[in-house]
Amino acid sequence: MPQFRKDPITETWVIIAEERGHRPEDFEANQYFEKDQEYCPFDPGNEDMTPPEIFAVRPQGAKHSEWQVRVVPNKYPALAIEGKLNREGRGMFDMMNGIGAHEVVIETPEHNYDIPDYKLEQMDRVLEAYQRRVLDLRKDRRFRYILVFKNKGRSAGATLAHPHSQIIALSVTPKRVKEKLEGAREHYLDKKRCIFCDIISEELKEEERIVYQDSNFVVWSPFAARFPFETWILPRKHNYDFASISSGDRKQLGRVLQDTITRLNNALQSPDYNFLINTSPNPNIKTERPGHFSTIEKDYHWHIEIIPRITSVAGFEWGSGFYINSTPPEEAARYLRENFG
Amino acid sequence: MPQFRKDPITETWVIIAEERGHRPEDFEANQYFEKDQEYCPFDPGNEDMTPPEIFAVRPQGAKHSEWQVRVVPNKYPALAIEGKLNREGRGMFDMMNGIGAHEVVIETPEHNYDIPDYKLEQMDRVLEAYQRRVLDLRKDRRFRYILVFKNKGRSAGATLAHPHSQIIALSVTPKRVKEKLEGAREHYLDKKRCIFCDIISEELKEEERIVYQDSNFVVWSPFAARFPFETWILPRKHNYDFASISSGDRKQLGRVLQDTITRLNNALQSPDYNFLINTSPNPNIKTERPGHFSTIEKDYHWHIEIIPRITSVAGFEWGSGFYINSTPPEEAARYLRENFG
Repeated sequence: MPQFRKDPITETWVIIAEERGHRPEDFEANQYFEKDQEYCPFDPGNEDMTPPEIFAVRPQGAKHSEWQVRVVPNKYPALAIEGKLNREGRGMFDMMNGIGAHEVVIETPEHNYDIPDYKLEQMDRVLEAYQRRVLDLRKDRRFRYILVFKNKGRSAGATLAHPHSQIIALSVTPKRVKEKLEGAREHYLDKKRCIFCDIISEELKEEERIVYQDSNFVVWSPFAARFPFETWILPRKHNYDFASISSGDRKQLGRVLQDTITRLNNALQSPDYNFLINTSPNPNIKTERPGHFSTIEKDYHWHIEIIPRITSVAGFEWGSGFYINSTPPEEAARYLRENFG
Repeated sequence: MPQFRKDPITETWVIIAEERGHRPEDFEANQYFEKDQEYCPFDPGNEDMTPPEIFAVRPQGAKHSEWQVRVVPNKYPALAIEGKLNREGRGMFDMMNGIGAHEVVIETPEHNYDIPDYKLEQMDRVLEAYQRRVLDLRKDRRFRYILVFKNKGRSAGATLAHPHSQIIALSVTPKRVKEKLEGAREHYLDKKRCIFCDIISEELKEEERIVYQDSNFVVWSPFAARFPFETWILPRKHNYDFASISSGDRKQLGRVLQDTITRLNNALQSPDYNFLINTSPNPNIKTERPGHFSTIEKDYHWHIEIIPRITSVAGFEWGSGFYINSTPPEEAARYLRENFG
């Protein structure tokens, strides 16, 4: 059983997930990356190589192998879905058993596609799979936060080349997510305004960090970007929860996400990247942060963070939590504006 | 001039350092790594390839090129040493000019050495250079925090192969450093004890995460290790400030650091790694955190964090601040105990 352990000094939770199976002798300079394997477990026809399907989209009357999107449990989950949440002290240390869900969204049957290759309907099926899985996992009140993210390419942490993203349901809210939630709440308590809405109006006025905008979404390089070409997508209209998106807005988001990835691919020779959907904690659990859930609908604003993996993060950043970014976001935005999707 | 910019949501400072010179067209899948260059700027005889020397150790009567340790400004500094600290608002955003120091400690004349190859006197010269530079930089009251760290190997962020470490003097205390300082202060205010001293006695009792101990130092895999084989070195005796170390303890630390790197090299086939010295903020500036500096001598405890770079950090970790570690620290410690220095 994986464990959550709390760092007693910074109170950060870490998952110790031995089951994922890296024994010390497995660490090699070049870790395994499936690319040219004879069998890809995510290819159509290989459905029995994954754990049993959780969700799939198939055209009416299609065969089992004729799926368009498929969600399955991660074969090497960082967390276990079964069991009760148990908190435990061990000496001065705090731990919990590693209850959670870890799912894989197989985005397309096409092994060699990247997001820019998808048809718009396919892009929307992927986002709909995210939305449905988040809504479904939130019914489980052990799960405080559902993270949706994608690791594209080996340097971004992917071990399989077939296009996929991941969903992790957690019993604690992750640290950086919590810092954003708290920052937004403080701003709201102080000013009675959403900090993201304030930044949107500031960025639209200053213009120089804007990559793209349409009637519903804005894409920018953030003012204090931690990484070169870090890029955010936000809905213009205030909304705290990605999972509440309408199907019309979702289709438009698909187009914007695809456009943004295309721009990054054009500007940076198709870099490896990560993206992560920042959204509300599970709204079915209202007890976690007393006095907060009453305002989260007003104080938080969902968004997607995209981080191309074009530089290695050095010791300075790791140890200090302090980032040096060699590309000013104004310059990154200008490049991305010029590299049309 | 580089800039500090504050993320308005999480209040994290980022350095935007255009001068370091990565324009978008410079980002390639494989970044430049000097290894087999004809001329290494850190080799003896090439002293004129670095900016003017700040500090060096030479035997009596030695020629200029017969140095044993040499400290020079970073040729591509993330920060500028000259100028006044100016804080500035821009719309809703906060920024500061990027005043600071960025120095390189050339650890040895030997291009192909690694820490385990140093004689003990050489190891001590390196630590003495750290100590002296920290003490000297602290005289500058613009600098709140002096970071000493090493990036070994390309995946750890190094761009030169010749053994070197780095020193960065900052006008703000970095986020993770601050979190540790605050965690330690809270524990002290609550219990009137140093949290690190408490953890030391707990770890020595539990034993299973101890890698090595002697009369003055203890080496362990932390309970909530974020990374496989993350390893810490701490002085047993309470002391908030690395720079106050006695020359006797420093010699012993050199031996312990060398021993620890040797164990990691043996266990993990000489991985790339980072280490960072966590110590007190500049004790010559007492105003930053009201009510705190009065207790920091009692509440903080310096230590060295070593992180082997054997896994890539994935999107989940980046975006969420939540770490999945596939090697339980108990197992890592057992391996390192068995791989003697």
